[in-house]
Amino acid sequence: MDEEAIAAAKRRAAESAVEAVGDGNIVGLGTGSTAAHAIQALGEAVDAGLSVEGVPTSCQSRALAREAGVPLIALADVARVDVAIDGADETLLDGSALIKGGGAAHAREKVVDTAADRFLLVVDKRKLTETLTAPLPVEVLPDARSAVAARVEELGGDPTLRAAERKDGPVVTDNGNFVLDCAFGAIGSPTRLAAELAAVPGVVEHGLFVGLADEIHAGGPDGVRVTRR
Amino acid sequence: MDEEAIAAAKRRAAESAVEAVGDGNIVGLGTGSTAAHAIQALGEAVDAGLSVEGVPTSCQSRALAREAGVPLIALADVARVDVAIDGADETLLDGSALIKGGGAAHAREKVVDTAADRFLLVVDKRKLTETLTAPLPVEVLPDARSAVAARVEELGGDPTLRAAERKDGPVVTDNGNFVLDCAFGAIGSPTRLAAELAAVPGVVEHGLFVGLADEIHAGGPDGVRVTRR
Repeated sequence: MDEEAIAAAKRRAAESAVEAVGDGNIVGLGTGSTAAHAIQALGEAVDAGLSVEGVPTSCQSRALAREAGVPLIALADVARVDVAIDGADETLLDGSALIKGGGAAHAREKVVDTAADRFLLVVDKRKLTETLTAPLPVEVLPDARSAVAARVEELGGDPTLRAAERKDGPVVTDNGNFVLDCAFGAIGSPTRLAAELAAVPGVVEHGLFVGLADEIHAGGPDGVRVTRR
Repeated sequence: MDEEAIAAAKRRAAESAVEAVGDGNIVGLGTGSTAAHAIQALGEAVDAGLSVEGVPTSCQSRALAREAGVPLIALADVARVDVAIDGADETLLDGSALIKGGGAAHAREKVVDTAADRFLLVVDKRKLTETLTAPLPVEVLPDARSAVAARVEELGGDPTLRAAERKDGPVVTDNGNFVLDCAFGAIGSPTRLAAELAAVPGVVEHGLFVGLADEIHAGGPDGVRVTRR
């Protein structure tokens, strides 16, 4: 797929997921290029009469939602959402485990995707893989970066503090923390690695999402394949 | 024990632990009233010629260490510390599990206590218990407080957002987060609850410290009992 075809595949996946949103739903709004298409499509549905409230997962998704005309409700004010629509950097074919965090928004995304009755994963088909190999983003308390990096190495990973662009030094997340991109090679047991990383003091949130996705909407040149788990 | 006897018991426990600090050690400096006695005693040892670098776990411990003349090194700059001296709000008799976070410093404390080759727990004997029952402090991303509270209830806890004094609204931690004090009653399996809470998205760090303490220095009216695990 060329750039244009990829954008079209993302848009198709996003539109497919938005069709599953019901009237009156509270909708988790993911972050990233495919989730952005979903927010755009949700705005069009609102224009056409759909009543929803969107829960943004980042400064970016909040701004896009306001622009698209999606009414918002703060994450802090909801304990559950009806449906979350969010992308991934890489996902197993069956969606049982996936990696997020390229946009450093994975902590709030995981809160929202976990709080959702249904989490609809929207991706273009290039994100599908049989084994997760992408570097795993791990959000850390800034002061804990050295201690966490040492523990990641013990777990078999190679951590790199994510450097910012248009700002000297490291990326600072919307939560005020740093990100270690941790290369683990092929991740044999996402479930085990997720539990191990969650237990490391100083880790705010890692980008492994295990057992969360309920549907995968995978867009390609020929349309969208929807898989229910 | 009356107030004076309690303070004396804390001081004895702290002084006992500081005797275990070696020349050239990097020392984790806990937060709270008993840890404060340890910082004071460490400063006196430095005055007497001991060479150490202290890693503070909070604004409070940093200030006390500066006042006591303990040279400091930032947590961000160390991956390991030789020995950590820290207190607890409540601890099992054998130190296998304990609760911290009354001072809302438990996230950095856990980073430092975990990074320590030896973690020396310093308490007065009132903190010893056969079953942990104290409300468990859970530091959360501010926007995730409702979602985390809902999950804590599912796990059998009763969460209360910690209110500040001398500031309207909730306590904000040194890391910029909120604290949910979660009453679980008697905690039957600290190991399981620790893993369950660590896996909840939006939880930055909970106050259960499992398997971390290497020595307990428990001060009482008659002296200090030291238990090695």
